[in-house]
Amino acid sequence: MSKSALLTDFYELTMMQGYYLEKHDSKAVFDMFYRNNPFQGGYTIFTGIEELVDKLEGLSFSSDDIDYLSSLGIFDKSFLEYLRTYRFHGDVYAFEEGTPAFPGEPLIRIESDLMDAQLVETMILNTVNFQTLIATKASRMTLATKGHGSIMEFGLRRAQGEDGAHSASRASFIGGTKSTSNTFAGKKYGIPVAGTMAHSWIMSYPTEEEAFRKFVEIYPDNGILLIDTYDTLGSGIEAAIKIGLEQKAKGKRIGVRIDSGDLSYLTKAIRAKLDEAGLEDATICVSNDLTEEIIRSLVSDGAPIDSWGIGTHLVTGGNQASLNGVYKLSAKEVDGEMVPCLKVSNSYEKTTNPGIKQVYRFFDKEGNALADLIALADETIEKGRNITFYHPFSTADFFVMKKDRYASFTPMLKKMMEDGRRITEHKDLKDTQKESAEKLAAFDKSYKRIINPHIYKVSLSEKLRNLKTELLVKTRTKESEIEEK
Amino acid sequence: MSKSALLTDFYELTMMQGYYLEKHDSKAVFDMFYRNNPFQGGYTIFTGIEELVDKLEGLSFSSDDIDYLSSLGIFDKSFLEYLRTYRFHGDVYAFEEGTPAFPGEPLIRIESDLMDAQLVETMILNTVNFQTLIATKASRMTLATKGHGSIMEFGLRRAQGEDGAHSASRASFIGGTKSTSNTFAGKKYGIPVAGTMAHSWIMSYPTEEEAFRKFVEIYPDNGILLIDTYDTLGSGIEAAIKIGLEQKAKGKRIGVRIDSGDLSYLTKAIRAKLDEAGLEDATICVSNDLTEEIIRSLVSDGAPIDSWGIGTHLVTGGNQASLNGVYKLSAKEVDGEMVPCLKVSNSYEKTTNPGIKQVYRFFDKEGNALADLIALADETIEKGRNITFYHPFSTADFFVMKKDRYASFTPMLKKMMEDGRRITEHKDLKDTQKESAEKLAAFDKSYKRIINPHIYKVSLSEKLRNLKTELLVKTRTKESEIEEK
Repeated sequence: MSKSALLTDFYELTMMQGYYLEKHDSKAVFDMFYRNNPFQGGYTIFTGIEELVDKLEGLSFSSDDIDYLSSLGIFDKSFLEYLRTYRFHGDVYAFEEGTPAFPGEPLIRIESDLMDAQLVETMILNTVNFQTLIATKASRMTLATKGHGSIMEFGLRRAQGEDGAHSASRASFIGGTKSTSNTFAGKKYGIPVAGTMAHSWIMSYPTEEEAFRKFVEIYPDNGILLIDTYDTLGSGIEAAIKIGLEQKAKGKRIGVRIDSGDLSYLTKAIRAKLDEAGLEDATICVSNDLTEEIIRSLVSDGAPIDSWGIGTHLVTGGNQASLNGVYKLSAKEVDGEMVPCLKVSNSYEKTTNPGIKQVYRFFDKEGNALADLIALADETIEKGRNITFYHPFSTADFFVMKKDRYASFTPMLKKMMEDGRRITEHKDLKDTQKESAEKLAAFDKSYKRIINPHIYKVSLSEKLRNLKTELLVKTRTKESEIEEK
Repeated sequence: MSKSALLTDFYELTMMQGYYLEKHDSKAVFDMFYRNNPFQGGYTIFTGIEELVDKLEGLSFSSDDIDYLSSLGIFDKSFLEYLRTYRFHGDVYAFEEGTPAFPGEPLIRIESDLMDAQLVETMILNTVNFQTLIATKASRMTLATKGHGSIMEFGLRRAQGEDGAHSASRASFIGGTKSTSNTFAGKKYGIPVAGTMAHSWIMSYPTEEEAFRKFVEIYPDNGILLIDTYDTLGSGIEAAIKIGLEQKAKGKRIGVRIDSGDLSYLTKAIRAKLDEAGLEDATICVSNDLTEEIIRSLVSDGAPIDSWGIGTHLVTGGNQASLNGVYKLSAKEVDGEMVPCLKVSNSYEKTTNPGIKQVYRFFDKEGNALADLIALADETIEKGRNITFYHPFSTADFFVMKKDRYASFTPMLKKMMEDGRRITEHKDLKDTQKESAEKLAAFDKSYKRIINPHIYKVSLSEKLRNLKTELLVKTRTKESEIEEK
């Protein structure tokens, strides 16, 4: 995959030229992380990294790109010549695709030089912020169904642009949906494609009965009939039952879909009519601006639903349309040594975690996830000892993870690229979906509640906490001195 | 532009095959319209049609696409052969790019046959729903500034995928933004690119002063300095003033940017410090999750802001991430004649307007927009007469547009494609932006209020209202007969 490196904020290029002309291109380490779980939920499903690795590997400036930059009149010839042969050459460490993740954790760590690491910021955020948002939404919706029926992703027509649709289809699938209506995404990602029929199909025939009969003649095994074009509980369900009985006589079954009205009332009434007619095996599919809250309400209401067609809210995030992922410098080379960096803020929650870091996920002996620890990458976390977990913001606050409470811990940041080259295998999306669900199953359901979830603990190691405190004190002292002058 | 016709919901293809195999491919007319203004606003800026026309013109199935469809095992060989040479061959009528539009108005009218018109539904909605949403958001934000400073679109990192970013940059520009941070969109659409610097630039140097000085050495004319890395009103502004004075001595000016904190308090304090230092010409740029409500509040607060950097809410729509545009059959061929179609609904607001339609916008002699009238395309609206405007839902409700109230009216749906070929010229995006602003200026400001706007009237002609009533009565009568059986 060749990818234009112009897919970046303009200031990355002006800063990059700045580093280039100043010969200020020391080594640098950046972290990508986010600050708050979306949808007021308890977790995210980290997604997009596999596509990101491919994009980074293929990153380059075409002659056209260089011509365009040259036309802007602010780039030096020597810098443009440098860009002509530019390739991403960093090392990339990241959580695996589809892994549950939490606020403040470095999910991607880029180790390169300033120019290289700066250029790719926007592409990283554009790819990972969105796909993580949507995989998380799909995961929440899947959980909301409590196993009652599977989700078909129907979002293409309401998605944000073409790629907003394709990458949403991909991320939704990782988060747990069963199929997509997006044929292009079906081809591109190998996601099963699905669909029913539109109101226009019905309206193009003189009667619903004729429209349904024509449809099952062609698709005897896929007969999901849309029954709300004129009168759901009148002409719609009656025609569907008629066709359903004809199909039953041929050993086939039908389904019905409703796309409007009170879905709880209607699905129960329809189920009763279908059962009464002897069509107990006919399925019921619903759609119409579904959210995880509506799904949860329908499921707890006992609405007899076999499948959910979900578009708008699934592929855009609905009331939250972006993940606030950021990319911050955590270490830089000074006189040949890597020195940790801190971005302080008037808001203490926004002060970054300094240094080159690793994240460890702790499990009990049944495999349940207990808590995550952010530590410095070069410190050793010793198994079989009590470990102090420090609060990420309230630096005096802590708890002790007792040595018999945990049975194991796993480093979460895996090396994915070395010197700009992929060093991991491509995975089948179905395997990623499966592994993601297994990983999420390790978390107590209280963390996965749709509203007001329990907060999963993400803590700092003692060394990291001490480093952060030290750097913060140093920065504030320097500021006070400036103000006193 | 060659475009894969797989960018469609799967059911469009299964329905298309249905029409093909049944030889049920009569002429058909579809309307694209939306039901509610986004953001609880009073209007939309209709956008995306120019890109859509290019996409429709280049639409085809590649051999690869056909192979993929074949692999699914539900498409007939003869149908796949037909797809191999498929080209869109419809006529397209639409509002012009960037035109203010209102709920219920047919914004695009497709006249073709059932197969052709059905296939393109998803692509139409995917393109136009999103771009219209974003152009509308940009227009609202531009209005909220009340001329105090221009908007830079900074959304790439928070946008929904790559194309979610590019098409958002395009639509934002049509809606009134001045520049984009998205370099790729700058190249693709000719939008001016802009940017400042990141916190990492500052952090890569030992001090803010050094970081700022290095920057203005390279970019003496573009020196917008980010002052909130450590302490905005302390080290940040002090270093900026120092550099600002050095630059002033060279005849150059600087700007400062803040990306956090209380923007009203900080911009006023910064303005005072800059002015006191003799840097009256230094500009102030703000960013940080801005919405039209925050802009409005800052402007009415008198915050001295020269430019706005806006990302997340602008390019995703923020709390409303999709426009609910739909595509409905309005007429079909029966025995060689075009017959109007009605989609009824239990919700009276969702019952469609039947027949092949045109929209007329009425103006007074000063050029102020008065109201829009949806009429049948083949009826003549006679100038110089009183005209009855019927409420679109409440069919007995009306008002009379007196002959001396209006001076002119304009048909809004223009023919853009004939037999699948573009028949209008491509336009420069800057011209579209300018024309869009002029068109919007014709509307009273009460319609453009950010919250609780006055509702602009979109009415039905008497003929259309009579047709709708007749078809609705016919449908309900048929249903009652079925239920009585």
